[in-house]
Amino acid sequence: MNSDYALLETKIEYVFKDKDLLLNALTHTSFANEHRSKGIKDNERLEFLGDAVLELVSSEFLFKTMPDMPEGNMTKLRASLVCEPTLANDAREIGLEEFIYLGKGEEETGGRKRNSIVSDAFEALIGSIFLDGGIDNARDFIIKFALNDIENKRLFYDSKTILQERINIAKVGKLSYEITGETGPDHNKTYEVAAMLDDKVIGSGMGHTKKAAEQQAAYSALKKFR
Amino acid sequence: MNSDYALLETKIEYVFKDKDLLLNALTHTSFANEHRSKGIKDNERLEFLGDAVLELVSSEFLFKTMPDMPEGNMTKLRASLVCEPTLANDAREIGLEEFIYLGKGEEETGGRKRNSIVSDAFEALIGSIFLDGGIDNARDFIIKFALNDIENKRLFYDSKTILQERINIAKVGKLSYEITGETGPDHNKTYEVAAMLDDKVIGSGMGHTKKAAEQQAAYSALKKFR
Repeated sequence: MNSDYALLETKIEYVFKDKDLLLNALTHTSFANEHRSKGIKDNERLEFLGDAVLELVSSEFLFKTMPDMPEGNMTKLRASLVCEPTLANDAREIGLEEFIYLGKGEEETGGRKRNSIVSDAFEALIGSIFLDGGIDNARDFIIKFALNDIENKRLFYDSKTILQERINIAKVGKLSYEITGETGPDHNKTYEVAAMLDDKVIGSGMGHTKKAAEQQAAYSALKKFR
Repeated sequence: MNSDYALLETKIEYVFKDKDLLLNALTHTSFANEHRSKGIKDNERLEFLGDAVLELVSSEFLFKTMPDMPEGNMTKLRASLVCEPTLANDAREIGLEEFIYLGKGEEETGGRKRNSIVSDAFEALIGSIFLDGGIDNARDFIIKFALNDIENKRLFYDSKTILQERINIAKVGKLSYEITGETGPDHNKTYEVAAMLDDKVIGSGMGHTKKAAEQQAAYSALKKFR
């Protein structure tokens, strides 16, 4: 846990007029629940707002930068940019997870590494920048920290489909996924998965769900193929 | 079909700088398909953008006017405001359906009355106002024509649940829905449904799906109860 909020403001390249908004964005429910009597609020309402700001800014960005892309493709591309694992990665790029206020139980069970908590804080941060600095500052932040590296994000999002397609075209064998490890207690499991081409490992991945681990494995295989 | 676009601008209380944006918003795919050679584009990309503008403005509106409402309730209330039948009703309040460019086949099979077509044009119109006049003009339009009459919209959206709850509390009998009529061809059916309290009709509704007709019937029953 890091409470040097001036450092965070440097990382996100935005300085808050109202610091309470920043603190509110960083407050997970588990912390607010433990400190309810002090009037501390969680970040869920800000996340609700930030999610909508992100949706608009990413839609506007795709609409303007991809003038010939059909609506269906824009919808799919937007989904790859605003899905939970992608936003959690965006958040980790700025080290946001360090700054989140977590309750004790959540901290002990590894909540600081959980995609849902980290991506929710990222959306709440967007909501708080929007309230503090308006749509233009929120747009600047989103373009810098969420709408970068689009090709890789698309590849990651569609990795299972793309890998299957390439293997079909190359006719090199049969793709499957195998669980190679399971660690942690039931409520906080981590899966290790191998992407297999026939009986050869071509990629590996980890995740809190089997699907997330498979996606990671497919993505790692795609990166080798390139 | 009405092509007096100055009249439409009067109704929506917004005058376009770029009239092509307005025409683009009113162009259904079925019309664009018939006139592809003339370079006419459909409104699907504008709908994609308008949907996101509506999501942000309605979220911001609820966030600011309901300062104590938990995130879950805001999400549900927002859904009642931006769902297809509600948006189609909003569109009909300004007579938007008259101004939509439809293909011949779509016109003949009653497309001008279909909720999906009318609500999509409403979202595309929001997208075009946003591009033409920015977020402030889009916000004005949405607050005037989509975020009005919120209590009734919530009642409509939740009508089946609310009706069931009231009947449970009053312990006056058993609620059921019965189809009382079906008209039109398979691809464009209209259902008539009665809401029944034991064997007594307490409301009736029509819709293109059984669920839509039941919702309408529940809403008509609720209005009588008041």
